[in-house]
Amino acid sequence: MNCVMYVETKTRSIIKAISWRILATLTTMTLVYLFFHRLDLAAAVGVLEAFIKMVVYFLHERVWNRIKYGRKEIPSFVVWFTGLPLSGKTTIANLVYEKLKKDGIKVQRLDSKDVRSLFPEVGYTREERNRHIKRVGHLVSILERQGVSSVASFISPYKESREFVRKLVRNFVEVYVKASVEACMKRDKSGLYERAIKGEIKNFTGISDVYEEPVKPDIVLDTEKISPEIAAGIVYDYLKNRFIKNGRL
Amino acid sequence: MNCVMYVETKTRSIIKAISWRILATLTTMTLVYLFFHRLDLAAAVGVLEAFIKMVVYFLHERVWNRIKYGRKEIPSFVVWFTGLPLSGKTTIANLVYEKLKKDGIKVQRLDSKDVRSLFPEVGYTREERNRHIKRVGHLVSILERQGVSSVASFISPYKESREFVRKLVRNFVEVYVKASVEACMKRDKSGLYERAIKGEIKNFTGISDVYEEPVKPDIVLDTEKISPEIAAGIVYDYLKNRFIKNGRL
Repeated sequence: MNCVMYVETKTRSIIKAISWRILATLTTMTLVYLFFHRLDLAAAVGVLEAFIKMVVYFLHERVWNRIKYGRKEIPSFVVWFTGLPLSGKTTIANLVYEKLKKDGIKVQRLDSKDVRSLFPEVGYTREERNRHIKRVGHLVSILERQGVSSVASFISPYKESREFVRKLVRNFVEVYVKASVEACMKRDKSGLYERAIKGEIKNFTGISDVYEEPVKPDIVLDTEKISPEIAAGIVYDYLKNRFIKNGRL
Repeated sequence: MNCVMYVETKTRSIIKAISWRILATLTTMTLVYLFFHRLDLAAAVGVLEAFIKMVVYFLHERVWNRIKYGRKEIPSFVVWFTGLPLSGKTTIANLVYEKLKKDGIKVQRLDSKDVRSLFPEVGYTREERNRHIKRVGHLVSILERQGVSSVASFISPYKESREFVRKLVRNFVEVYVKASVEACMKRDKSGLYERAIKGEIKNFTGISDVYEEPVKPDIVLDTEKISPEIAAGIVYDYLKNRFIKNGRL
């Protein structure tokens, strides 16, 4: 569960008042003692102050909870991983997603497989693929406007639909997960590429369907040279710098 | 814009420290004066206290901004308006949406028309309609899990897909917007019903396609008897009671 719409409860304000009071009353008592050298009066001022100020502090907190000033919005964004089957998109995207979640960022993970199992009727022709990606684009755009970021990993082989998503979204980060067809085939333990070569899988990107390389991706990750952990670190640092910056949540 | 992912900036903490200090130092000075009847010492304690405690207060705030305790989540929900064409779904749903937004609730409006213009390839057969509604169901379910509520208005004539959405979603509120076919026809200035009767529009709910009434809707609004404003008020009060309660945002 990562709903992040909060109200601050009265109990929180009360506990804050008490924790503050302990700090503050000790300070006051020390000051009074240093000025008057009388422990009895220092104690009396301290006790009275403690009671009165706890109430005042509580009210101060309640008023501030209605004031928006100084509450900084964290921009939401869409990180879009594109690349050949088995280029490493899902693995890297998962790692990035986990890092963002750990930071308390509101983020939705969208992977080709999951989304296709939600809408199983989608095919693999150019038209169907484009339509599918555009639909996902609308989804991430709605999420972005509601303050939810997305980590999306889709082969998304065609420029047309990737550019469509880029235009729809405010903060779009295109990550090209680069690996040669040969390298991807070597990693392929389930024999997808083999079946595609035999013609058992139609419209298979890299074999029987084209992959249109991104022209100006925001990040390129060459997974023949770097590990998924290092690749995820690169993306994470990029997001941190561009969107999150000095903001701890 | 209604992104609601916040961090509290340092400036906010500083301003809070100052506004608190004015209140608090005045209290301390009054107390010291009442005890010692010496204005000069009261002032001296006050000035010294003001400086030291502002720093302590600031640090206290920064620590509390990292503490989750007492930050109450507001549950997200899905309000789903179903009913014949021109029964009044969109009008009422718009009013409910505006009320929720005014309260600061994170909420997404989804209307049949808008969603269909996003995915224009969807037809009106039973299969296509069910698939379409299920897709919308997945969307509202993702939003709900991310803390975003939805106000959805769709004819959604079939039990099957409405029940599908109900099961997918945690907090589902089915609102049946009830009006007889005759009443809907009277309201129909654009002649949709007429064209459906002539056979110019196929699969038109209420004329050439069935509308399966909800069995156990959470709310029924008879729009032949009550105005859209009153209807919206009923739904809003229901949501307020069930999900938002005493929570001001």
